[in-house]
Amino acid sequence: MGRWQPGTKQRLQAVALELFRERGYEATTVGDIASRAQVTERTFYRYFADKREVLFDGSATLQRQVVEAIAAAPADRAAIDVVAGAFATVAPFLEARRDFAGRRANAIATNPSLREREQLKMITLGIAAADALRARGVPDPAAALAAETGVTVFRVGFDRWVTDPTGDLAACFRDTLAALKALTLQL
Amino acid sequence: MGRWQPGTKQRLQAVALELFRERGYEATTVGDIASRAQVTERTFYRYFADKREVLFDGSATLQRQVVEAIAAAPADRAAIDVVAGAFATVAPFLEARRDFAGRRANAIATNPSLREREQLKMITLGIAAADALRARGVPDPAAALAAETGVTVFRVGFDRWVTDPTGDLAACFRDTLAALKALTLQL
Repeated sequence: MGRWQPGTKQRLQAVALELFRERGYEATTVGDIASRAQVTERTFYRYFADKREVLFDGSATLQRQVVEAIAAAPADRAAIDVVAGAFATVAPFLEARRDFAGRRANAIATNPSLREREQLKMITLGIAAADALRARGVPDPAAALAAETGVTVFRVGFDRWVTDPTGDLAACFRDTLAALKALTLQL
Repeated sequence: MGRWQPGTKQRLQAVALELFRERGYEATTVGDIASRAQVTERTFYRYFADKREVLFDGSATLQRQVVEAIAAAPADRAAIDVVAGAFATVAPFLEARRDFAGRRANAIATNPSLREREQLKMITLGIAAADALRARGVPDPAAALAAETGVTVFRVGFDRWVTDPTGDLAACFRDTLAALKALTLQL
């Protein structure tokens, strides 16, 4: 088996999620994953630092895409629009891994320490988005509010998408933003 | 020294924060705290499970007050107003411990694992607030959005209050809510 055979990483992720569903996350070992993917443990560790990273290896890509989209937005755009637009740009990345996203969400939901890791990931994403807004000259509290509210909309919209097999992620984001606007109009 | 002498807990918290500032959080031991407060370590452990809990012992009270205020709000009130009102009810609790809140925020800001603990506390608070809204019959996504947005406003308003010695917490919450409303109107 080639050392960097294309698809090995995706196969490792697919069999890991299969095993997490069959045996539970805690009971699955790196050895189990490697064995079912027909690679050595050493090969597993070329792609992932540990078992948990199978589920979180997309986080850095997601965050980079959001930060770059915030930086690239037209200068005259309102902060909340910049953030909403930035989260919309990651929809194709997630739509392309829909099956993975759904199985990943199921695995995370069953394990408190994975839920914490996911929650902290979203907070880190919010902090990065706020910094990217400040770099555009958006003052606080608008930068922090727009970024954290954007993360809330992303998370709520994502949860809806991942539990509704017919949904479209960009539409889920739009609906959630509209729901947020309707809520705050009642203030 | 009496076993449950009034004020012992507050004195332990005050000297702990003093020591965290002088030596750093990591370098301070429970023995150091007990010794400066002139009690035994055993007495320390009557009040706090560990050193970290000196900083987080108010979390349960805060969450209970928020959840109770959500449950007690008039039935016809809008979800976002219910949450905003619930967070406003905890302002007096926090105003009464303003010095503690400021020193506590400084201690947390210097330590990544304390920051994580604080972030997870806020997420737990948001989950509890969303559940309290659902118990009132607020459907999703409004329940999740109103609760998480409320936590964002609470956190941003709190940060402003804790760094501005002249500020009033209730006013910080109101200003932050107004800033959020102004932002979402641009959607």
